[in-house]
Amino acid sequence: MGRIVYKYVIFIFFSLLILNSFFIIAHSKNLDEKKPCKRFVLYYHDILFNGTNAANATSARVTNHTKLGNFNYGMLVVFNDPMTKDHHLLSPPVARAQGFYFYDMKTEYNAWFSYTLIFNSTQHKGTINIMGADLISEETRDLSVVGGTGDFFMTRGIATIRGDAIQGFDYFRLQMDIKLYECY
Amino acid sequence: MGRIVYKYVIFIFFSLLILNSFFIIAHSKNLDEKKPCKRFVLYYHDILFNGTNAANATSARVTNHTKLGNFNYGMLVVFNDPMTKDHHLLSPPVARAQGFYFYDMKTEYNAWFSYTLIFNSTQHKGTINIMGADLISEETRDLSVVGGTGDFFMTRGIATIRGDAIQGFDYFRLQMDIKLYECY
Amino acid sequence: MGRIVYKYVIFIFFSLLILNSFFIIAHSKNLDEKKPCKRFVLYYHDILFNGTNAANATSARVTNHTKLGNFNYGMLVVFNDPMTKDHHLLSPPVARAQGFYFYDMKTEYNAWFSYTLIFNSTQHKGTINIMGADLISEETRDLSVVGGTGDFFMTRGIATIRGDAIQGFDYFRLQMDIKLYECY
Repeated sequence: MGRIVYKYVIFIFFSLLILNSFFIIAHSKNLDEKKPCKRFVLYYHDILFNGTNAANATSARVTNHTKLGNFNYGMLVVFNDPMTKDHHLLSPPVARAQGFYFYDMKTEYNAWFSYTLIFNSTQHKGTINIMGADLISEETRDLSVVGGTGDFFMTRGIATIRGDAIQGFDYFRLQMDIKLYECY
Repeated sequence: MGRIVYKYVIFIFFSLLILNSFFIIAHSKNLDEKKPCKRFVLYYHDILFNGTNAANATSARVTNHTKLGNFNYGMLVVFNDPMTKDHHLLSPPVARAQGFYFYDMKTEYNAWFSYTLIFNSTQHKGTINIMGADLISEETRDLSVVGGTGDFFMTRGIATIRGDAIQGFDYFRLQMDIKLYECY
Repeated sequence: MGRIVYKYVIFIFFSLLILNSFFIIAHSKNLDEKKPCKRFVLYYHDILFNGTNAANATSARVTNHTKLGNFNYGMLVVFNDPMTKDHHLLSPPVARAQGFYFYDMKTEYNAWFSYTLIFNSTQHKGTINIMGADLISEETRDLSVVGGTGDFFMTRGIATIRGDAIQGFDYFRLQMDIKLYECY
């Protein structure tokens, strides 16, 4: 009888160990920055309305920049921009980005974004909501994916933005690397 | 002895099975779109300030629309609107919606919202924070509930917006179906 | 043999009990408002640009207030403000707050905030994204921490704002008590 009780104790110990490791595995799904449950890289194209390019423009400034510094401080832009799978402006858009950004630094270009990615194709239907600072001076900068709907129901994650080389006066392009860590 | 070891193996197997099913149950609380942990349907009433209706107005445009298209592109409205339980404008408000929206499409009416629902009654005290695209052309559109405070501490969910029939020049009404999937 | 089976039943019962309590412990990490996994109190200093103080100013109004009431309704301010550990304006900043607020009430001062805290020191690197209503008439008001990046990867929580005594015409200070309940 003593031996069986002894085995029970060992058994309880090991089963709690296994149980615990299950917990850790289950929770580490959310933890590993390198293992998003969904990921896609898209390109964002912003063509600013300059008064004459209404046919092509996808965004417009709604406030003038202030006189605080020389880097457009306070200029707020509302956009409705195409998102493409490769970096060509004219590729078929797989989503729209609707939202706004504004410039917010006296001493260099720096911006803040809040927007929704809208997917409405056979592949994906739903939205992803994003907000955060765009620290333009850094090569990559991370924004927060704070929610989602439809195929992206209740998602959360990180959107890593990278400025592309091409930046004209009224056009700029960003790579957006969307990594979702909560998928339902 | 052999039989007991054999039983142990079976026992471990079954207990892991049970354990696993517990996990799935625990996590599926968050999963089922049809089973929010809290839900309420409210009506949002927006009366735009037109220069003469200051007594009744609950919102005001803070930027003029741009010349990009004919659908108010870039017009940004700050609101502080009553939320009622039924669709009568004059019903006692159960919450306030404070935030902003702007129009963001060249070819039709389309908007983007970010706001806080503020409850301050005997029934509920706290706030719910919401953001997302309001694709006006669709019958219903989903925004993200990205956080909450007070009675809605740390909540997340979906706010489904539905345009109501009545839409005057300076007044519109939305049904907001708030579904929370994380309740603490 | 009968006794052993009986013990098995008891054992299963207890192990499920233990298992369950593990679940509750694991999940209650998120539940207790008094036990954030990370917390820090910072002071926010906002010096509004008045046309002549460009050297010191850290924010600027980008829209004029409307004529709806006498409390700056609709005035939108973009800020890039220092955050300090104590309440002295000139203490070395430990973070920047980049974002915007606007006033949104006819009958008293009341505001709405959305911003990013940016940490870039040896101690912390990363961002925290916050949004919510600032009900100025209340002594403390809670905003939602809706996401984070870097050291604050995927965080969520509550930011409790408290107005400080000092409020000049172009300067105001807020205490921000950041409580994070999801840490990875």
